Amino acid sequence: MEHPENDELYKGLKVNKGVAGVPVINPYLKKRPQRKEYTPSEFVEGILQGNITILSQAVTLVESARPEHQQLAQEIIEKCLPHAGNSVRIGITGVPGAGKSTSIDTFGMYLIGEGRKLAVLAIDPSSERSKGSILGDKTRMEELAREKNAFIRPSPAAGSLGGVARKTRETIVLCEAAGFDTVFVETVGVGQSETAVHSMVDFFLLIQLAGTGDELQGIKRGIMEMADGIIINKADGDNLEKARLAASQFRSALHLFPLADSGWVPQVLTYSGYYKSGIREIWKMIDEYTAFTRQNGYFDHRRNEQSKYWMYESINETLRNTFYNNPAVAAMLKTTEQQVLNNEISSFVAAKRMMELFLENIH
Amino acid sequence: MEHPENDELYKGLKVNKGVAGVPVINPYLKKRPQRKEYTPSEFVEGILQGNITILSQAVTLVESARPEHQQLAQEIIEKCLPHAGNSVRIGITGVPGAGKSTSIDTFGMYLIGEGRKLAVLAIDPSSERSKGSILGDKTRMEELAREKNAFIRPSPAAGSLGGVARKTRETIVLCEAAGFDTVFVETVGVGQSETAVHSMVDFFLLIQLAGTGDELQGIKRGIMEMADGIIINKADGDNLEKARLAASQFRSALHLFPLADSGWVPQVLTYSGYYKSGIREIWKMIDEYTAFTRQNGYFDHRRNEQSKYWMYESINETLRNTFYNNPAVAAMLKTTEQQVLNNEISSFVAAKRMMELFLENIH
Repeated sequence: MEHPENDELYKGLKVNKGVAGVPVINPYLKKRPQRKEYTPSEFVEGILQGNITILSQAVTLVESARPEHQQLAQEIIEKCLPHAGNSVRIGITGVPGAGKSTSIDTFGMYLIGEGRKLAVLAIDPSSERSKGSILGDKTRMEELAREKNAFIRPSPAAGSLGGVARKTRETIVLCEAAGFDTVFVETVGVGQSETAVHSMVDFFLLIQLAGTGDELQGIKRGIMEMADGIIINKADGDNLEKARLAASQFRSALHLFPLADSGWVPQVLTYSGYYKSGIREIWKMIDEYTAFTRQNGYFDHRRNEQSKYWMYESINETLRNTFYNNPAVAAMLKTTEQQVLNNEISSFVAAKRMMELFLENIH
Repeated sequence: MEHPENDELYKGLKVNKGVAGVPVINPYLKKRPQRKEYTPSEFVEGILQGNITILSQAVTLVESARPEHQQLAQEIIEKCLPHAGNSVRIGITGVPGAGKSTSIDTFGMYLIGEGRKLAVLAIDPSSERSKGSILGDKTRMEELAREKNAFIRPSPAAGSLGGVARKTRETIVLCEAAGFDTVFVETVGVGQSETAVHSMVDFFLLIQLAGTGDELQGIKRGIMEMADGIIINKADGDNLEKARLAASQFRSALHLFPLADSGWVPQVLTYSGYYKSGIREIWKMIDEYTAFTRQNGYFDHRRNEQSKYWMYESINETLRNTFYNNPAVAAMLKTTEQQVLNNEISSFVAAKRMMELFLENIH
């Protein structure tokens, strides 16, 4: 699943083997395949010039599982880091059916009309390429996919959340170095992926629908408290009043929540992704948020905390993998867990025994 | 801070050194100190007979940092485990000023009047004994402290949350083996301790006050979504209408939350801890909850998940301690973190370097 040749995105395009097996994709050169092998410096130069083809190839390296690709990717990222950071990163979530794709298409076209450059990424660790991941094909964002100032990239292939998150965060670095000033990271409103997205964006946007509350049953508990803004979609036609009522209910509910660390009070707005109404107000809100948090210092504080968070998350994930993949540990784990469930030993004695086993068998 | 001699609870009581330095406390024997040294079997026998003095001493062993005490404590716990589990465990939280002590006193007296036996424990990892921890002295629960069917124990001394949580969970086991059928675990509405308490109880009760929302600013985000019941205190006199309005607002807000895994819809009730009104209804709610979740299987499911959670939490905490206390790691950590914050290396490269350093220096 790590081979980009399988990616929906590349269907119908000529894919060649470039440097060290990295596919070189150039839709304009179907007849005479180019076999250019880029050095890390050439990659970085291309990215800094905003060359989308080279950016795409670098992202492919980031997503690759091969050690030689990873090596090359890390060299590129390290050189891009000083040029990164100059975008507003926006997380977008909502249950299936809330109209995320249409909304992102509409938001994106609005931003491009304002002269911005937009990268649209996604995190969906549960997806399998063969079944079609979210953002797996560009047809979901018809208008945006044709824009040269938009870069759309599907979620990295299924894997651990930590691994997928790493790839997306590194892709953000590359996109920012390439001059994209707005980055969307889309996720679905289930599982652990929202926490991951929330931990890599400046503003977290929750798309909701009007209704009696039943629509909310699909969304994970805790997400509402993460949102910096809640936007109610399908505020059009017969649904307009219902959407306004929902907005008012959400506002009352948010009033009961404690103030966020940012000092920002989440706003609730209504809009129509399909009829493209209420879009300007959403961007006014996000601009106000960034101005507000830049002024009170929270914007940079949050980014620093996020960098530290991912460093420690990554350490802790590697530690856990080292432990649970240890053959001696793996062989005893289920038996020990069952002893705990049978009340034969306490959770803590179980943990102590497993740790002793690990330390005896670490090398 | 690990020596129970420093504990407020023991002030004015004669404290002697018993088995292996374990203090033997007997308030009725101030003149002729008893020097009985219990074997693990004698401890267990005493606990199963409901002997409060022996239970207290066993809890002191659980809380002790000395290896020989820990060894003895684990033998006692292992023998008590088959007799534990027969209580309803209730987590109680709320911001300072919400009236937790008065409420627990009132709830406890009500339950004892109903023929129940109540253990009141607490988790407050931030507390320092010298400054007086929550539940640090029994005077906060005047009535309850005089009841023979109530066992009140302050929070274990300050330490890591994992360590404090372990001690409290093991104390629950001992109390249940001693015949206590209801266990309260109190915590304050700040920090990480609510998650720990939520992960060791059957029912999580949030005490709130009526008001405009300002009172909520002290409570941690996410706690409202953990609650199985929200109770509004000080619903008395002039405050009655305000409390009823607050209850109605909380009900509307909860309506916007997705349904909990238990299938239970959290209830919102009003009461007065001081005037002892509305107490019966709170216990009717908790009894309904336990009947409902026992019937749909969630009660046992949650307990099993909690046992597993603490086993894995304990493993992960030990892993993290092993890593961060490694001298080579500790020496490089801040420098590496700073490189990340300066955008010199990515979070993931930093993590990778630190892990390599750790694995080279593990023994």
